[in-house]
Amino acid sequence: KVQQDRLMHDIHSTCEWGKGERWGDQSTETGMSRLSLSDTDKQARDWFAETTESLGCKVTTDAMGNQFAVRPGLNEGAMTYAGSHLDTQPTGGRYDGILGVTAGVEMLRTLNDNWVETNYPTGVINWTNEEGARFPKSMVSSGVWAGDIPIADAHALKSVIPANDTATMKSDLERIGYLGSTPCSHTAMPIAAHFELHIEQGPILEAEQRRVGIVRGVQSYKWFTITVRGKESHTGATSFAHRADALLLASKCILASHRIATRHNALASTGILNLRPGSTNTVPGFVEFSLDIRSPSNETVEKVEAECRAAFASLTSDTSSEPEAAHSHPSSLTCDISWRTDFVSPATSFHKDCISCATAAAASLVDSSVPEPDAELNLGAWGKLMTSGAGHDSVYTSKHAPTCMIFAPSRDGVSHNPREFTTPEGCADGAQVLLGAVVRYDRL
Amino acid sequence: KVQQDRLMHDIHSTCEWGKGERWGDQSTETGMSRLSLSDTDKQARDWFAETTESLGCKVTTDAMGNQFAVRPGLNEGAMTYAGSHLDTQPTGGRYDGILGVTAGVEMLRTLNDNWVETNYPTGVINWTNEEGARFPKSMVSSGVWAGDIPIADAHALKSVIPANDTATMKSDLERIGYLGSTPCSHTAMPIAAHFELHIEQGPILEAEQRRVGIVRGVQSYKWFTITVRGKESHTGATSFAHRADALLLASKCILASHRIATRHNALASTGILNLRPGSTNTVPGFVEFSLDIRSPSNETVEKVEAECRAAFASLTSDTSSEPEAAHSHPSSLTCDISWRTDFVSPATSFHKDCISCATAAAASLVDSSVPEPDAELNLGAWGKLMTSGAGHDSVYTSKHAPTCMIFAPSRDGVSHNPREFTTPEGCADGAQVLLGAVVRYDRL
Ligand SMILES: NC(=O)NCCC(=O)O
Ligand SMILES: NC(=O)NCCC(=O)O
Repeated sequence: KVQQDRLMHDIHSTCEWGKGERWGDQSTETGMSRLSLSDTDKQARDWFAETTESLGCKVTTDAMGNQFAVRPGLNEGAMTYAGSHLDTQPTGGRYDGILGVTAGVEMLRTLNDNWVETNYPTGVINWTNEEGARFPKSMVSSGVWAGDIPIADAHALKSVIPANDTATMKSDLERIGYLGSTPCSHTAMPIAAHFELHIEQGPILEAEQRRVGIVRGVQSYKWFTITVRGKESHTGATSFAHRADALLLASKCILASHRIATRHNALASTGILNLRPGSTNTVPGFVEFSLDIRSPSNETVEKVEAECRAAFASLTSDTSSEPEAAHSHPSSLTCDISWRTDFVSPATSFHKDCISCATAAAASLVDSSVPEPDAELNLGAWGKLMTSGAGHDSVYTSKHAPTCMIFAPSRDGVSHNPREFTTPEGCADGAQVLLGAVVRYDRL
Repeated sequence: KVQQDRLMHDIHSTCEWGKGERWGDQSTETGMSRLSLSDTDKQARDWFAETTESLGCKVTTDAMGNQFAVRPGLNEGAMTYAGSHLDTQPTGGRYDGILGVTAGVEMLRTLNDNWVETNYPTGVINWTNEEGARFPKSMVSSGVWAGDIPIADAHALKSVIPANDTATMKSDLERIGYLGSTPCSHTAMPIAAHFELHIEQGPILEAEQRRVGIVRGVQSYKWFTITVRGKESHTGATSFAHRADALLLASKCILASHRIATRHNALASTGILNLRPGSTNTVPGFVEFSLDIRSPSNETVEKVEAECRAAFASLTSDTSSEPEAAHSHPSSLTCDISWRTDFVSPATSFHKDCISCATAAAASLVDSSVPEPDAELNLGAWGKLMTSGAGHDSVYTSKHAPTCMIFAPSRDGVSHNPREFTTPEGCADGAQVLLGAVVRYDRL
């Protein structure tokens, strides 16, 4: 059994590096702001390397800064990993990613304490820049590992936080000493199986009072940057008819995307919006905003994208105050809209063997007699087979290795927020299932 | 008669300081980015002081950095001024403000060339931070002069451009050496009359093919900063029902304000919008945006404000995609909205004597026989009596001195834009009317 207190100590002591906004009186009641490849990310990485080495692992850093800590098994051979990430959102919490890596470390500690020798090596991975917050491509380093993202593109990614930062992934990997010499690829660093414990980041497990989720796959999503070009003009001397207001149009687009996504039972969200010139009495001539479209179905994502493209285009020639309204006040002055696709992550289905191992491990939380992995096992009222709304590095590992994920409940479904919270019991349950799944897969 | 070439030379040579975005091949086809109290604003100020001194003026700088250049008359006494400003928008043009000050200098040159002795002193004023772009209160320094804005408030104004600038008006006045020792007040620096030549910044004069506008007043306006507080959450794992999306709400507010203003034949504009945390996969928990409401009538501005306050408040509890829609998907998760009033400029009427002098001066553009100022004078097809959509320092001078303004046509009505353009003939016409108005007022 994993030790809950030790796990919580690892979580909260490492959260001293990159501590974010305070939201409560307790010492652990702050968020996190540990942006990828920042100085505090380096501190967390150093801790990961030192700790896993002290637990008997050999640690390899690849050319994207991914850290692979390997604990030898009875035989040589491909390794079963627990992996997640130590970077956070700018206003993130203490669990997203962090729980998965620290639970991996707790797995190592528990194996050592119990003198467990696995058949093959097991290990823990810390993936770089999973969030895509600072370098705006989520799961970029597992994407390079999978061969889906060229390393040159990844290395060239520019930091978007803070606003005028000039760092690239490569320059900051070098700066903090984590540009490893091992190639970042699934052939150089093969994986036998990948298990990822993560917080749910949504409200379902809590609402249904389940202790753990077994994740059968991840929904489809696409990220875009949309640029609106209008015309700067004086807010006091320019009638509405003489304007090409880039912000008014962007506002209509944001509402239209929300409406279209609602219609398709999908999600569309704008998290970034920048405008120019940014003066109270100048109508903005330039707006750039992000659009994140998601659905369990690839076809639905495509449909929402296509409808948004059509709606935005028709809004450019509409000067009314309504989203998608009839062209009530056609104007000769229109804005231009252009789209750039930043990231595509198709729907993912995880591997049945991994799901079986995790399900069996989950079942043993409540019934120690459960013998062997069984994909058909009923998860009962205490667990749930579910789909992830968020992308994870497991999406990319699943392309080259059997993979599945384990979810711990998120209080109020809150994530990407300083108040993100999972109970110590929830964390320990998740870590216990992670350990059980890895050991079962190794036996398999 | 003023000299068109000399005037254009003053305009374009001083526009080397703070040159902005290039939009054409000609050397003068760039915009301006001469933010108030920047290094380039200092260069323009130095030029103004040196040039007017070399033309025989005594230059006084007050505690807001306003520069008063005074040319002696036959008698001591209160002065008739031509005034405007040398600061620009971040993406401004070569005429807004600059035309008025350089035309004042051209007035001095023309009076000197013709050995004209006025009855009383005449002069030129360069007002500080008229734009309100860098320090977000327009006409703040004429406002202090008028006694409407406490100097401590003005000195404490924080720079909003660039984004993380820490300068205040006072610190930057000191830094560039323009924190004058003369009190900034209408008693310390009295004005007998104030004439301001400015570009129209709207399309009317050009559309009606008029050479010049005589401005009888300025419309009413109010500036607000509106803060929306929602809840950060994960864009992939959070259903629409579980969100409090500050940007979605801000978008609805912007559209609602546009719709309300349209209904009242008024203007409502948002030029600044900042959000946090600014990550593609985090629903924004915080948005702050500017709102600029204008109408010729104070009552209409109040009505639009009141309706916007009511509409925004009701939108906070609406989760649909429509602005001001019925509360179709009421949600327990709502955003908070708060308003801050940043600036209030009631409707202004200029002085009949000044209007008469300017009208007579304008009439003499086409008919040299026009003898004396006459308020009833018909401006004919070549001029227009009109109201200004934009605020100007003349709004504040009019509270303590007879004031009026003269407008030169703006190509395409474009202003607060690098492409702002007024023909050399239009500039010279305006300068000629400015000179004629000052001389006529002095005689009066
Ligand atoms: N789990 C998580 O926040 N992943 C980042 C990628 C995404 O936005 O889904
Ligand atoms: N003329 C001008 O741009 N003035 C600034 C104040 C306003 O926005 O009206």
